Amino acid sequence: MERHYTFIAGPSGSWRVRQMVPNRGEPLAPATHLQVQAGLQDPELGASWCLHGVVSNERYVTRSEKSALAARQEGLGRAQSTCAVLIPIRKSTQWWLLPQDERRAVIEEDSRHIAIGMEYLPAIARRLHHCRDLPSPQPFDFLTWFEFAPQDEGAFDTLLARLRTTREWEYVDREVELRLIRATPPSSLIGAPEKP
Amino acid sequence: MERHYTFIAGPSGSWRVRQMVPNRGEPLAPATHLQVQAGLQDPELGASWCLHGVVSNERYVTRSEKSALAARQEGLGRAQSTCAVLIPIRKSTQWWLLPQDERRAVIEEDSRHIAIGMEYLPAIARRLHHCRDLPSPQPFDFLTWFEFAPQDEGAFDTLLARLRTTREWEYVDREVELRLIRATPPSSLIGAPEKP
Repeated sequence: MERHYTFIAGPSGSWRVRQMVPNRGEPLAPATHLQVQAGLQDPELGASWCLHGVVSNERYVTRSEKSALAARQEGLGRAQSTCAVLIPIRKSTQWWLLPQDERRAVIEEDSRHIAIGMEYLPAIARRLHHCRDLPSPQPFDFLTWFEFAPQDEGAFDTLLARLRTTREWEYVDREVELRLIRATPPSSLIGAPEKP
Repeated sequence: MERHYTFIAGPSGSWRVRQMVPNRGEPLAPATHLQVQAGLQDPELGASWCLHGVVSNERYVTRSEKSALAARQEGLGRAQSTCAVLIPIRKSTQWWLLPQDERRAVIEEDSRHIAIGMEYLPAIARRLHHCRDLPSPQPFDFLTWFEFAPQDEGAFDTLLARLRTTREWEYVDREVELRLIRATPPSSLIGAPEKP
């Protein structure tokens, strides 16, 4: 199963950019569309930017959290999920120097990141991509892709606002938020119903 | 700082292969030498095999373990470290499906992997490379590189034997062991004294 993905912003793509907001640090260049492709692809000529990420094993969840997530979550590509949000994030050097137990404590015991996300399942589906260890230097450490139905956008806004007030977010030194609307029907990639 | 490394086995290289033993699963093709290079390089013509890995953030150590390791460990490239061992390892699918807390419990609370390694510091220096999330499919999940002086080879043998009896090793489904001797003086790569 392909675990690498490419996000290409440019004049065409299966998602239309409704809004792009730099929440922290440098913005990304504007674009009207986003194309999401399996594999690490090179951007076409005329692309505005291109980000790569890889879906990896879980780094923080416990057995009970994993079971609770599995029981509630649904996959990407649901027919009603015509809204998507891409949130590229970079964390500080200080974050990456923390040992595993302290990163876990910040993420969950302190910030409740996993528990908060769980409250919004199955409405807000999510896939996390890691960028930091890829061979081509990436401007972000994580790309999180969210999908939901239009009527769940308010819930998504609340989720995002709650996460951004946590201690974990003190380690975020760059963050951009792209709000997207599906421009073409579900394809075989992000779009095809998949197991979570 | 470059975190990606390439290990090329072939007819030449700065390390001479003294012995290559498949400990579990398929062996690797024979070769007389190993070249270790920074970056993800393509193998030259005539190479026997080529493995890629990336040094990443720590996945399991706690603050107290990290501090204890930092206090005792020495870097690669010490003049007296004329012996090296490369151990490529693949872990089972079952391992990768475990949540973080259970992987940690197997590695340390049960198998004492970190504590055992600590006993052999600073004599046995070590660098861990991750392979699993790289774009080019890799035959192993981890490449561990060890360096020590000839008089510490007995200690290294004991370290290895102890680790292989642990519960963690039940999840290892492929493992090869390459014993190496430095063929050329320390260069600017593995070879140059570096901070641990």
